[in-house]
Order: sequence, then structure tokens, then C-alpha cells
Amino acid sequence: GKLFKVAVLPGDGIGPEVMAEALRVLDAVEKRYDVTFERTHANVGGAGIDLEGRALPETTVNICKSSDAILFGSVGGPKWETLPPDEQPERGALLPLRKIFGLYANLRPAIIFPSLTSASSLKEEVIAGGFDILVIRELTGGIYFSQPKGIEGEGRNRVGVDTMRYSVPEIERITHVAFQAARKRGKKVCSIDKANVLSSSVLWREIVINIAKEYPDVELSHMYVDNAAMQLVKWPKQFDVILCENMFGDILSDEAAMLTGSLGMLPSASLAEGTFGMYEPSGGSAPDIAGQGIANPIAQILSAGMMLRYSFGMVEAADAIDQAVAKVLDGGYRTRDIYQEKAGEKLVNTKEIGDAIIANL
Amino acid sequence: GKLFKVAVLPGDGIGPEVMAEALRVLDAVEKRYDVTFERTHANVGGAGIDLEGRALPETTVNICKSSDAILFGSVGGPKWETLPPDEQPERGALLPLRKIFGLYANLRPAIIFPSLTSASSLKEEVIAGGFDILVIRELTGGIYFSQPKGIEGEGRNRVGVDTMRYSVPEIERITHVAFQAARKRGKKVCSIDKANVLSSSVLWREIVINIAKEYPDVELSHMYVDNAAMQLVKWPKQFDVILCENMFGDILSDEAAMLTGSLGMLPSASLAEGTFGMYEPSGGSAPDIAGQGIANPIAQILSAGMMLRYSFGMVEAADAIDQAVAKVLDGGYRTRDIYQEKAGEKLVNTKEIGDAIIANL
Ligand SMILES: CC(C)[C@H](C(=O)O)[C@@H](O)C(=O)O
Ligand SMILES: CC(C)[C@H](C(=O)O)[C@@H](O)C(=O)O
Repeated sequence: GKLFKVAVLPGDGIGPEVMAEALRVLDAVEKRYDVTFERTHANVGGAGIDLEGRALPETTVNICKSSDAILFGSVGGPKWETLPPDEQPERGALLPLRKIFGLYANLRPAIIFPSLTSASSLKEEVIAGGFDILVIRELTGGIYFSQPKGIEGEGRNRVGVDTMRYSVPEIERITHVAFQAARKRGKKVCSIDKANVLSSSVLWREIVINIAKEYPDVELSHMYVDNAAMQLVKWPKQFDVILCENMFGDILSDEAAMLTGSLGMLPSASLAEGTFGMYEPSGGSAPDIAGQGIANPIAQILSAGMMLRYSFGMVEAADAIDQAVAKVLDGGYRTRDIYQEKAGEKLVNTKEIGDAIIANL
Repeated sequence: GKLFKVAVLPGDGIGPEVMAEALRVLDAVEKRYDVTFERTHANVGGAGIDLEGRALPETTVNICKSSDAILFGSVGGPKWETLPPDEQPERGALLPLRKIFGLYANLRPAIIFPSLTSASSLKEEVIAGGFDILVIRELTGGIYFSQPKGIEGEGRNRVGVDTMRYSVPEIERITHVAFQAARKRGKKVCSIDKANVLSSSVLWREIVINIAKEYPDVELSHMYVDNAAMQLVKWPKQFDVILCENMFGDILSDEAAMLTGSLGMLPSASLAEGTFGMYEPSGGSAPDIAGQGIANPIAQILSAGMMLRYSFGMVEAADAIDQAVAKVLDGGYRTRDIYQEKAGEKLVNTKEIGDAIIANL
């Protein structure tokens, strides 16, 4: 059988609880498919700070380096919020991980399950039948990582400076990811930019148009980021794959995720060239409900599914996980965050919904 | 009586039609208050390109320079979309106007009128009773105007570069605008940044905190821009004044405007130091319905109201305009864009709703 090495980074808040369910799902996959997931746990985020002095300890980086993929929980909480930004759990762990491992392609599905449309703050008529958007966000370039960046000068003469820079190869490779993903889905890419103001966007748009010629079966459109923020609210169903640079992707993927009303359901993947990737829920560490066993583990379980699909090539097992989750939702199982007090719903805790998903695998 | 000079820039699409109604409202104000509005018309946008060769002709700039305020319609349309970005109607007119006149403070109200909540794509329960957000956007700095900006290199070695730069005085003056506005309303400022990633945001947050000390009666909070994009969708009523740098303000003000569902209702002001300002509807030029006399002039009329309030100190007349609009809406008058086919609604055209507003002044 095959063997894959997984670096398991549960993190803070509800991270360890929901990670436990994802690992149980991996156990179940091992039993059904001829595969072994060799897991090594490591500290990250607030747990890294408390136990090893920093959000991304050296030992954790090394464990990730000797793994085939990273399964990441969630990090952060009030305890660490007064630290300098660079040292805080989220920034201090996520940005270095993205850079060290070259995780340039962030895939953030914003899917609204037909049975959960009532959780959205959008009107039923706007989202009837659900929607299924995949935001593809460039993750290692742009204003996040370009130089110069910093605060120059003294006192009232200080200026804060950031640089948004994109090279042609950076734009090309993320564009390929978007078009290849669109090919397997709705065959539409909407590229987001601000080409009426930004030079990096002018180059972005030109390169996207070039690459699109290699995908004549996929329809390309362009939208300014301000208009995209509006169109998502107005009619989310118009979108299939949304392609963004780093900062625009940060904003729009969160907006799209919130439109589903079910942040606890949304996984994400951050992919390097080759097969290495990091997989994590889109939601946060939810410190307010941590330790109570009531958190929704579905985003973490679907993140494990994305790991099987993108890093391990186990498409069948990944599909099985997606289907098991859908069945459990259709069966009315609801953790507290998605419970609507409707007929046919069963309020369950973290472990119970994990059990139900495993039973449906 | 007083005399104010107004540069009237109707622009393209529905611009001239809705401007005509705003000018009729100014006529009515002249009759009721001891004031004269001396108006000089000038070409801008596509009209500027067609008649004088550029989106912002020199003659137009000079007319604006010898005026006390600019009343701007809307610009753009399919005819000019294939021009280079710098020459297009929107970018080619708006960005230079902002820079030439130092219009650093952009006020964009996103108000949902209780009688129009059904136009929003948000659920009734999320917006019951309406909401009233004022986005204050820094408009002459940041990534829109800072250097270096451009595309460097050749062929596949090209890089697109933009710079987001903020100085202390730039942050200070826009922060004062936000706190002074909040004082007259809900007494809350939510400052938006991305201080976990951007150096300009770290400085932004520090300066905002400093200035806030001068306004102990106003509550200050901070939110990352990605979270703000989510929170607007989730619970818009949590916001009073939202303070943003230029790019974040572009995105969030449009998102907030769309949440109201009535873009045709939203005015905006772009203010310089002193009393000079430019006033324009938040919506676009709507070329699809131009020339039919059915466009909604309310945003343009409310923009004229903002001009009276902020540039001419005519608070009473400005309040009267706001109240007349509210009365007309309560009376069921609806242009096509806000017509819901409900009992008590009267479908009217551009001129008819203008008449009704003037009658209620
Ligand atoms: C924590 C922060 C640095 C990060 C980002 O901005 O990328 C987060 O918001 C995300 O989207 O993963
Ligand atoms: C046309 C464009 C340059 C402009 C901007 O980005 O500021 C517009 O979107 C706006 O918000 O007024």
C-alpha cells in the first residue's frame, strides 16, 4: 500500500477538537483504501508560542519539510492578541509557512449547500438552489511579500510603505491553476483586478488574457475588485472560478465565504508547485466555544478531503468524503452553528457528527 | 443674498437627465432661501473626449477652479471602454479631479431607507428597520497615487509595481473627518486596516488611536479589511462610521452601497481642506437606460444636498432636501429601479419624481 506523511498542526481554540475528527476520518480512509497516513503532530500558533516560544517553531517547520502535506487546524485567540503583529499566531505562522513552502495557489471554495441556504444572510430568492464559487487566490506575491515594506522616518515625518509587485511568471502560474480548475467545473473564470488604477493589475490582465488562449473551452471575464465586491452580494450565482491577486483574494474570499452563512463548512487548500500543499478550514479558532466539544468539524474534514485530492491524488476517497458530508447534512445532522430548529434536524456535537460522516463513508 | 458658483459636470449616460432634476431642485432652493447658485456647465468623461479630446478638458478644470464646488453627474459607457485605462472617462476624469483639487475626504453614505429594505439582497431580518453607514474613504493617497508605479522590464521579465504609502499628516486629517462626522451621528468609528500584513496599516492604526484621544465621546474600534467585508454582509447595523484608506474604501463602500439594494439613491461627497468639494452619485452612468427619462435622480439630488451642507454651510436647506426625498419615498413614488409592484407604489419617471421632491421642499 501507499504511505503518505502528514504534518498535523492542530493549533488553538477549536483546532484540536475538529482536527481529532478529521484524523478519525483519515483512519476510516486507511481501512477502506490501501493507504497509510503517517502523522506527526507539531505545535503552531498560540500553542507554538506557549510551548516553544514562537508561532512557527523550527521543529514544526522541520516536521512539515519531511512531510507530504500539512493538515492545519486554526490559530489565534485573545491570549496572544496584544503581541506585535509579526509574532501573533495567525500572521506569525501562516505567512512564513506560505513563503517557506512556496504555497502560491490558495483554493477557497464558497459553497452554499442547498439544505443550508437559510444560514445565509442573503435572501432565499438570491441563493435558491445554492451556489458554488471557487476563489483562486495568489498567495505568495503582491502586497503581502514585496519590498520595500516598512515604516520610514521619525515621529510625524514617518511614512508607512508597502509594495504590490507581480512578475509575469507569478501571474502565469496562478492563472493556469484557475483555468485548470475551471475546466473541471463550470468552465468560467472571472479575473479580478483594478486595472483602471494599478499597474500591477494592467500586467495581470494582459497575462491572464494571454494564458486564457490556451484554454479556449473556458470563458474568461474581467471585473474590477470594487464591482466584484458588489456583484458577489447582488448575484453570487454568476460566478464559477474567481481569480485574484493576494490582497483582493483575501477580501473577496472572505466576503464570499460569509455569504454562504456557514464558515464552519468551508475548507481551503494552499498549494505549492508539485504535490505539496497545506489544508485548513476557512473559519477561525472560535475561542469562545473551544473545549466544549460542540464545534463543527466539517471544514476540517473537508480540508483533509482536499489533501487527498490535491496532494495524494486520491480522488475517489476525496469524493467519498465530500459525499459522506453531504449525506449527513441531508440526514439533518447539525452542529450548533448550523442548527436552525427546523423539523428533521438533529442537534449533535463534534464527535457525533464525525461518527455520522465516518458511518457514511 | 449669498452667491455660490457651481461647476456643473453632467457627463455621460443618465448623467445629464438626473443632473437636470438636481438643477431644478437648486432652482427651488434659490426661491425659498436668499441664495443664488451661479452655474457653469462643462464637459467631462466621454462627453469631454468626444467634444474636447479628453476626459477632463483644460476648460473644465478652469471652470472648476473658479467655482465654489463641483456638481458631478456620472461618466463612462461602452463607447469609450476600449481606450487605454488612463484615457477612459472614469479614471481619466475622476483621479485627476481628486488630485488637482486635493479632494482627500470621500464621504459615501450607505443608507437603506426603511421603505426600501426589500430592494436589498439581504434578508429582511438582517436589515429590519434599515441601516445607516457612512464610509469615510481617504481619496488622494495610498496605492492610487504613490510612486513608484508602473511596469518595468521587457517581455516575460516585466514586473508590475504599485506603492501604498501613507504619511502621518495624511492619516491624521482623514481621521479627524471621520471622528467629526461620527460626533454628529452614532458616535462610533470603525477603522479598517490590514495591520497584520501591511506596514502602512500599522502606521494607520497607531495614528488613528492617537487622534481618537481627542474625541473621548466617540467609540473607536479596529477591523481587518477581510473581516470587514464579512461583517458588512453578516450584520451591517453594527457599523456607524467606517474609516478606510483609499483602496479598502473603494471596495468596502461599493459593497456597503450594494447591500442597500438602491445604488440610485446614494450620493457622495469628496472634500478638500476648506469648503471646496465635489459631489456625485455613487452609481454609474447606466448607458442601458440613458435617454429614456426613466433614471432615478435621487442620488444626484441628494448629492446637491450634500453640496449645500458641506461646501455652502446651508444645513437647513440640505435637511429640507433630505426630508423631501424621504417624504416622496414614503408617499410611494418609485422610479423603475426601485419599483417593487407593491400596493401604494406609484411608478414615475425622472421628471415626475423630481417634481414630487420639489413640491415637498
Ligand atoms: C492572518 C492573515 C495574515 C491571513 C491573510 O491575510 O492572508 C488570513 O486573513 C487569511 O486569509 O488566511
Ligand atoms: C473609476 C475609479 C478610478 C474609481 C476609484 O477606484 O476610485 C471608482 O471606482 C470610484 O470608486 O470612484
